[in-house]
Amino acid sequence: MTGAPRINGPRLLQRLADLGRFGALPGGGTNRLALSDADRAARDWTVQQMRALDMHVAIDAIGNVLATCAGTADLAPVATGSHIDTVRTGGLYDGNYGVMAGLEVVAALRDAGVRTRRPLQVAFFTNEEGARFQPDMLGSLVHVGGMPLADALAAVAVDDGATLGAELARIGYAGTAPVGAPRVDSFVELHIEQGPVLDREGVDIGVVEGVQGICWMEFSFAGHSNHAGTTPMALRADAGMAALRCAAFVHELVARYGGRQLGTVGAVTFQPNLINVIAGRATMTIDLRNTDGTLLRAAQAEVLAHARRLAAEHGVQFSHRSLADFAPVQFDAALVDSVERHARAAGLSTLRMPSGAGHDAQMLARVCPTAMVFVPSAGGLSHNVREHTDARQLEQGANVLLQVMLERANRA
Amino acid sequence: MTGAPRINGPRLLQRLADLGRFGALPGGGTNRLALSDADRAARDWTVQQMRALDMHVAIDAIGNVLATCAGTADLAPVATGSHIDTVRTGGLYDGNYGVMAGLEVVAALRDAGVRTRRPLQVAFFTNEEGARFQPDMLGSLVHVGGMPLADALAAVAVDDGATLGAELARIGYAGTAPVGAPRVDSFVELHIEQGPVLDREGVDIGVVEGVQGICWMEFSFAGHSNHAGTTPMALRADAGMAALRCAAFVHELVARYGGRQLGTVGAVTFQPNLINVIAGRATMTIDLRNTDGTLLRAAQAEVLAHARRLAAEHGVQFSHRSLADFAPVQFDAALVDSVERHARAAGLSTLRMPSGAGHDAQMLARVCPTAMVFVPSAGGLSHNVREHTDARQLEQGANVLLQVMLERANRA
Repeated sequence: MTGAPRINGPRLLQRLADLGRFGALPGGGTNRLALSDADRAARDWTVQQMRALDMHVAIDAIGNVLATCAGTADLAPVATGSHIDTVRTGGLYDGNYGVMAGLEVVAALRDAGVRTRRPLQVAFFTNEEGARFQPDMLGSLVHVGGMPLADALAAVAVDDGATLGAELARIGYAGTAPVGAPRVDSFVELHIEQGPVLDREGVDIGVVEGVQGICWMEFSFAGHSNHAGTTPMALRADAGMAALRCAAFVHELVARYGGRQLGTVGAVTFQPNLINVIAGRATMTIDLRNTDGTLLRAAQAEVLAHARRLAAEHGVQFSHRSLADFAPVQFDAALVDSVERHARAAGLSTLRMPSGAGHDAQMLARVCPTAMVFVPSAGGLSHNVREHTDARQLEQGANVLLQVMLERANRA
Repeated sequence: MTGAPRINGPRLLQRLADLGRFGALPGGGTNRLALSDADRAARDWTVQQMRALDMHVAIDAIGNVLATCAGTADLAPVATGSHIDTVRTGGLYDGNYGVMAGLEVVAALRDAGVRTRRPLQVAFFTNEEGARFQPDMLGSLVHVGGMPLADALAAVAVDDGATLGAELARIGYAGTAPVGAPRVDSFVELHIEQGPVLDREGVDIGVVEGVQGICWMEFSFAGHSNHAGTTPMALRADAGMAALRCAAFVHELVARYGGRQLGTVGAVTFQPNLINVIAGRATMTIDLRNTDGTLLRAAQAEVLAHARRLAAEHGVQFSHRSLADFAPVQFDAALVDSVERHARAAGLSTLRMPSGAGHDAQMLARVCPTAMVFVPSAGGLSHNVREHTDARQLEQGANVLLQVMLERANRA
């Protein structure tokens, strides 16, 4: 080969535009819920693209699609991929970009006449978004053995109540390949950041070191609804104020922890929610995230203890339930280094960062060396029809993916 | 006359029970919205009771009903009264008790052969609750010249869109007496507390010194809705957290002010109100009350200033609007003393207190010496079908009203 093979930028953009037609919304963006008719059409077209690249396409029992092109040696493939389902008002890049870039890597290497030692694999996983079936990242979770297949097939759609298994069969993606086999050598996922950091800092490539841990809790306070004018402060059991003060504590805690600690109170519901009635019931959600699992557990414990103190102080009942609990994921150090090295070799600026959102890569990290490459999201927008990344940035990210996969696939 | 005249307790209770039939709810309590058919029936029956006591009944242009029995001198009457409209799920005592007790005072004095020097007046005012037309205390407000008659007649029902003027005509209570004339000598309103203080303290009679001031505000914070996982704390414009911290400040402020300062955040609304999305918009209500108008103004100013500081700190927009603003009302010192003296003379325990809720008496206080007498509300419940006051307590309160009116009406 002469010179390093390179992505064909216009061809990558064309594939992204073509894929964006499936489930396209009138004003831009896409609505391509998992296993919907739009998802079927997008899957069919993507599989057609894979076959046109002479890849061997396997569809497993949970509808994950894994396309492989053979290497010169009979070794485990170096894999990339992401998802092509979207949220109800999604953009053109979330997930889709990683899959189309994977195909472009294969195409670019073909164009350059490069055959790698290890096989290359491009995958897309079922129901990553979790917008139609719970949990999110379902396909990759089943793929790595984190959820029994039967449970996943029994998942019920939030929109029409259909089961995931029935919908897979309906759209022709209840595949025959066993889930999770064969194992791959490594997995590198290319994705838009879905956050504002790279765009704000003017950095080309995010070198993703891992996925932060997530702790989602729902707090419920139950007191007594009373007249706001005739009930002295000392005789109140104000569920609302207990909740509000607990939320303020979340803010204090996050400021005190600093570092990578995030805290969000995104949803608050009061009953009866009237100006002159003390709230008898208050429910709120707490979203805590940290790349450090020990700190995350400590933060969770502090918030819970404080909620209990406030409940006692206000004379209200406190209960809570966990809505999600994921330990932080650390990506493979050597593969992360490789992402950084190849980005810098291409003259691109880099920033080591955690992923704030969940991705299929965090599931793959359970079974093989894994890393991720981020490109900027304009304004940090994602899960939004206005999601945007510049063509140049899309091409840069795909070139980094190509170099990382090429090196990995050719190593001794 | 031989011995002090006394209330006929069973007759008072019978009138309360009879009145409670109009708009009675299946499980107890009443739904007697202002100027509804149930209100018409209750008005007709009450007017009939007044006429049966040989009282002269005047109906004014806003539907207030003022019944007078002549004194031995041609002087301004000593008045009592309240309202007979209820909220949609009201009890049997709120308002009704004051009107029925007024009639019982007249009946008891007749029985005892007592004719007072000044005339006695028993009134009920239109739309005190504000549950069907805004504002509340509308009839007494118009009565004292605080709202133009034409504006009041144009008020629109929240349920069926009818105007108050049309509804008055429909039920036959668009009276011909001019509003606000003639002036009365004084006004004493007997009412259930609608709060927990007397019941909790085991006190018989609340000696109401005034009505606390009310400041109702709605705060709106507007920031940016973003992903809770991918948006670093420093890049957030979290409208929700600005609101929540402001609510916590209300708690701190009320604790710091102490005394009669009340503060309630009863309603909170987030958008989009999702666990993993930073709230782009947050609206909440603030209800501040104090018997001291200067402290109330200071509290309002502090909360507003703090909201602006928090908005700046979180990088969000802040706006607010006033939903109500009433200065505290001080009742007449001599009349308040008279309430206390007569209660104690009857061997009843007393507590000087402000009224936490609004009452017609606060309007009358603008034009004549005014006071109120409270009896306990079991558990502090009101605006509730389970509203309850013991028969003994109802009779005690009416006897205090009788003695206060008798003394006042016979003074030189």
